[in-house]
Amino acid sequence: MNRKVILAVADGVGDRPCEILGGKTPLEYASTPNLDKLASVGTTGIMDVHGAGIPVGTDLGHMILFGYGLEDYPGRGPIEAFGREIELQAGDVAFRSNFATVNENLCVVDRRAGRIRENTNLLAQSLNNIEIDGIKVIFKEATEHRAVLILRGPGLSANITDTDPKVAGVDVNYKKCQSKDGKPDSIFTAEIVNKFLLKANEILSKHSVNEERISKGLLPANFILTRGAGIMPKLEKISEKLNIKGACVAAEGTVLGVARLAGFTALTAPTMTGNIDTDVNAKAQMAIDALKDHDFVLVNLKATDLFGHDGNPEKKAQAVEVFDKFIGLLLEANLENTIIAVTADHSTPCERMEHSGDPVPVLIAGPGIRQDRVTKFDEISCSYGGLCRIKGKDLSNTLYDFLEKTKKQGN
Amino acid sequence: MNRKVILAVADGVGDRPCEILGGKTPLEYASTPNLDKLASVGTTGIMDVHGAGIPVGTDLGHMILFGYGLEDYPGRGPIEAFGREIELQAGDVAFRSNFATVNENLCVVDRRAGRIRENTNLLAQSLNNIEIDGIKVIFKEATEHRAVLILRGPGLSANITDTDPKVAGVDVNYKKCQSKDGKPDSIFTAEIVNKFLLKANEILSKHSVNEERISKGLLPANFILTRGAGIMPKLEKISEKLNIKGACVAAEGTVLGVARLAGFTALTAPTMTGNIDTDVNAKAQMAIDALKDHDFVLVNLKATDLFGHDGNPEKKAQAVEVFDKFIGLLLEANLENTIIAVTADHSTPCERMEHSGDPVPVLIAGPGIRQDRVTKFDEISCSYGGLCRIKGKDLSNTLYDFLEKTKKQGN
Repeated sequence: MNRKVILAVADGVGDRPCEILGGKTPLEYASTPNLDKLASVGTTGIMDVHGAGIPVGTDLGHMILFGYGLEDYPGRGPIEAFGREIELQAGDVAFRSNFATVNENLCVVDRRAGRIRENTNLLAQSLNNIEIDGIKVIFKEATEHRAVLILRGPGLSANITDTDPKVAGVDVNYKKCQSKDGKPDSIFTAEIVNKFLLKANEILSKHSVNEERISKGLLPANFILTRGAGIMPKLEKISEKLNIKGACVAAEGTVLGVARLAGFTALTAPTMTGNIDTDVNAKAQMAIDALKDHDFVLVNLKATDLFGHDGNPEKKAQAVEVFDKFIGLLLEANLENTIIAVTADHSTPCERMEHSGDPVPVLIAGPGIRQDRVTKFDEISCSYGGLCRIKGKDLSNTLYDFLEKTKKQGN
Repeated sequence: MNRKVILAVADGVGDRPCEILGGKTPLEYASTPNLDKLASVGTTGIMDVHGAGIPVGTDLGHMILFGYGLEDYPGRGPIEAFGREIELQAGDVAFRSNFATVNENLCVVDRRAGRIRENTNLLAQSLNNIEIDGIKVIFKEATEHRAVLILRGPGLSANITDTDPKVAGVDVNYKKCQSKDGKPDSIFTAEIVNKFLLKANEILSKHSVNEERISKGLLPANFILTRGAGIMPKLEKISEKLNIKGACVAAEGTVLGVARLAGFTALTAPTMTGNIDTDVNAKAQMAIDALKDHDFVLVNLKATDLFGHDGNPEKKAQAVEVFDKFIGLLLEANLENTIIAVTADHSTPCERMEHSGDPVPVLIAGPGIRQDRVTKFDEISCSYGGLCRIKGKDLSNTLYDFLEKTKKQGN
């Protein structure tokens, strides 16, 4: 059977009992007729994305949902690079970075260069494609004051310190990049970073964008601060490894970046906000359209996570209802031979306002899926489901097996 | 307590909802009074033989049930050798092979030598015990046109190509055995294979069996094609590792081969067919008899897998009922101090007609086994059982622990 899979991810939806909701979780409290309908015809369970009691980030959580493991995680820098549509090569070292302001003594005045938003593309262009001691520098602006730095060439290491002092008032020479392990590769890489930062200061200080900012009384973006160095490992794209055509619909750059890393087509639209006002109609339609020429489509809705971080159970329950509306649109489409799976990339309990290691609910429904006795999609009901308690890799393997993309072991 | 264990394996019994059975699986649909009776007094669960969503073959599935892991799997050739009662030594390279017909230009005319069935033992004898460059050749006929080739001696590798072209019309020189990794061991092994194949052609061409075949207008079996090379690892027999006396009752050579590899006594009889007409009375009696001088007896019934591969849910449900009859015979025997465990080596969903990674049901009943609340043996009911969701290695460890054959870790 030529099946397709949609995996709908309610970001951070897993939660704990909330007093304000009468001791229910936002998922238990919210009205979710579509999720419950899907639960009634499918099989459910609870899932430790990496392992019980181990919180994971959105990036790693999605990597696992795509089929990778913790051992494949390249660090924050490379994920950001993929989020900025930079295709990394094995051995590249990528950093998250900020445009910042330093004074004439190279002391950090503002870590975000007055929260600069305009013309960072022009500033980034002036730093892009510099070469230092045989290492190519790739530099690209990101949202607001943020940017991505990549070093490409032989003999690099990511085992180096951050140069971002996290507070203003620090002399950049005090936070120079250093090797963490004293090995030649990391010593070399730290030197390249330090040379680049001084070179960048030289170029940015004379840049017309900054001259204009100064004339307007704005802080110049005359320095780069780096953090989160990560080296891109030799990582086979899931799409190539399994010979699968995958797509990902999301508002958020991180999720889209992970999708690109996995070899999935990254799809988004400006009306997808990552908040409760996201355009679920567009998301559903884009996912349904993507099914035409993809086997596996992951759709992320971010708002549930947002209100977990805000510690707002009522708003999180509202976001759950938006997610349920999205599921309803998929059900209305009567997709043929399509399995719909639902889960989260991690829990974000409102009481914690951060990710936690609580298991998330999981649901799989569609042709060929055994039907269990659970009729409601929430953390407690699903723990009585036919999948029992699985791990994130079990879910991705199971879904890929329904697409007949897993390899039989033995004979 | 001096316990015994019978592990009854319904080969490939795990399935998915079947439309023709009203959305039930064959196990749910079939009448299984004996399995249900056993479930009522025992504990149940679902099991990922290797891992969720990872299909395994019958050979690896049984290796895991005996107590091995994927890392111990030696490849198809060695399993076949054990199936032909050849006791491999660590370092032996074993191949599956065919008697084939080539013309005077060494072009493959028929990959199966006219599906030869007679006198292959005489042909095999003429190739057995040849020595080439210090390597001993062991050659033994198998069913019909099939045979097993073993190379024994120092410095061999299984990292070599198949010589079976899979289609007729190919020049055997085009499919010469080659090293896959360019290393000395595999280059040497490939040379041995190629020398053996030419030598075999020389011997077989002059063999009286072939002269007779030609005189009758039959294709001569004058060449050997090889595939599935595997090197026998240093693998301790489970029987020795755990100091256990094990037996295995099965119709199929593969299962019996795995049993021998594990150091278990391989028991079979001509009335055991591997189909729905298999002699369950003989199987039950043989298993019960084997309990007298063995601690652990695995019994395989193959028919359930057969009808999964045929995509025939109704026949598969019938095969389940034959399996249930077998369980009934064990129950009638009122075996003292004996645990009866029931499971499958993998799922073979009728809709897929191939092995899948869907979990299989598992049941353990007998003295000392906790009683859960499940009263029916099928994929859904068992997912509500007291064992929850386990892995194949968890089952074998659990059973060996009831035999007090596992080693306490720590103190």
